[in-house]
Amino acid sequence: MKKNKGSFFGVSLGVGHIMNVTVLALRVLNSVGYIAVPKSSLKKESEALSRMKKMPVHLEDKNIIEIYMPMKKEDIEEHWQAGARTIIDILSKGNDVAFAGIGDLLQYGTFHYLERIVQKEGFHTMYVPGITSYQALSESLNIPLVQGDEKLVLLPDDDVAYDEISGFDTVVILKKPDNLSLYKKMTETHKLFLGINLGKRGEKFGEIDNLDDDLCNLPYFSLIIAKKSKG
Amino acid sequence: MKKNKGSFFGVSLGVGHIMNVTVLALRVLNSVGYIAVPKSSLKKESEALSRMKKMPVHLEDKNIIEIYMPMKKEDIEEHWQAGARTIIDILSKGNDVAFAGIGDLLQYGTFHYLERIVQKEGFHTMYVPGITSYQALSESLNIPLVQGDEKLVLLPDDDVAYDEISGFDTVVILKKPDNLSLYKKMTETHKLFLGINLGKRGEKFGEIDNLDDDLCNLPYFSLIIAKKSKG
Repeated sequence: MKKNKGSFFGVSLGVGHIMNVTVLALRVLNSVGYIAVPKSSLKKESEALSRMKKMPVHLEDKNIIEIYMPMKKEDIEEHWQAGARTIIDILSKGNDVAFAGIGDLLQYGTFHYLERIVQKEGFHTMYVPGITSYQALSESLNIPLVQGDEKLVLLPDDDVAYDEISGFDTVVILKKPDNLSLYKKMTETHKLFLGINLGKRGEKFGEIDNLDDDLCNLPYFSLIIAKKSKG
Repeated sequence: MKKNKGSFFGVSLGVGHIMNVTVLALRVLNSVGYIAVPKSSLKKESEALSRMKKMPVHLEDKNIIEIYMPMKKEDIEEHWQAGARTIIDILSKGNDVAFAGIGDLLQYGTFHYLERIVQKEGFHTMYVPGITSYQALSESLNIPLVQGDEKLVLLPDDDVAYDEISGFDTVVILKKPDNLSLYKKMTETHKLFLGINLGKRGEKFGEIDNLDDDLCNLPYFSLIIAKKSKG
């Protein structure tokens, strides 16, 4: 029986250690004919594609579709629409498509922007979760994220007031951190840890010694975990 | 060359779909001679062991060590000490030990209680992250946890004031939910979703229709995700 419509899978590749990918993610990637990857720059290879090339995925059997999804806000809706049209065209012919992204696509993933358009057109969509960057940093630091009665806050960036987050035991701040005045206040109550390029060339992680130096010229793949100082 | 001291690995098994386990987790489990699992009741099999039996782990080659870790607060430190002594004894003879637990051991996992004792005695310890229950619920609901500028709060239980969390877009509440008055307030600003026994017999998930009915007699493996209502 020929399938009328393909399914659209959002497959999370994880971060950090290359084996931080689930069996389900690999199973889905190896089962489809088409793999889409987001590309933030026209000049450089997709980060997701680079990571996937190191995994046991049979890319030689696949059609790779690079979806241009720039980080800039202007015209971004237009790029999502164009990407979704490409996917819908393939799904309409009865092919399954997996979209592969770094980290966990359930948390600030780019899959969602395509998925909501594709779903509106009546296609089946599905998320495959993955290891997040804050789990990978916590793993590298060998310090658990939360234990016992501790509470955690997850923020997409550091555009936040200190009072909103100071009461939480663990604060995770994603995206390139640069709000120095916030972090200066935070050091009074929390220990700050930084992770840079986890699982990639130039990987660095550890406790922040000097805010001005450590937060200077950070690459895009940087994040902070703040842990409340005890006693 | 004979190793003098073994290493102690905290291996997260994930939740939900049985293939929600990482390649790294399987690799570590298959590489050690000893696998420890937490057991919360002396009468029933360890939940972690039941889950692991469905995975491609060669348990027939392993020594399985059940560590009694009851949920009750009384004498719990004593049980951790006894468990850690058992592990230290095996590590001292040069054997590696993996402790396997459901979900992500970095987030409210029981590994930490043993690991801090084992580490103090000079042994190498390491976390292997996994898929959390809130990722598994989000996957089942087919709704991302956070997108764009949304902020998330993760709580171990519902012993919290509404005002502390009402401003957050996504609120995750672990452990058997029973604070009905909190949830009644929350429904004014958030949509509530419940997950029960994800990946196990009796699995259920969906939006909460009726608080009194839906939160009645919940099993231990239950959690809530609240998403801020838009507009």
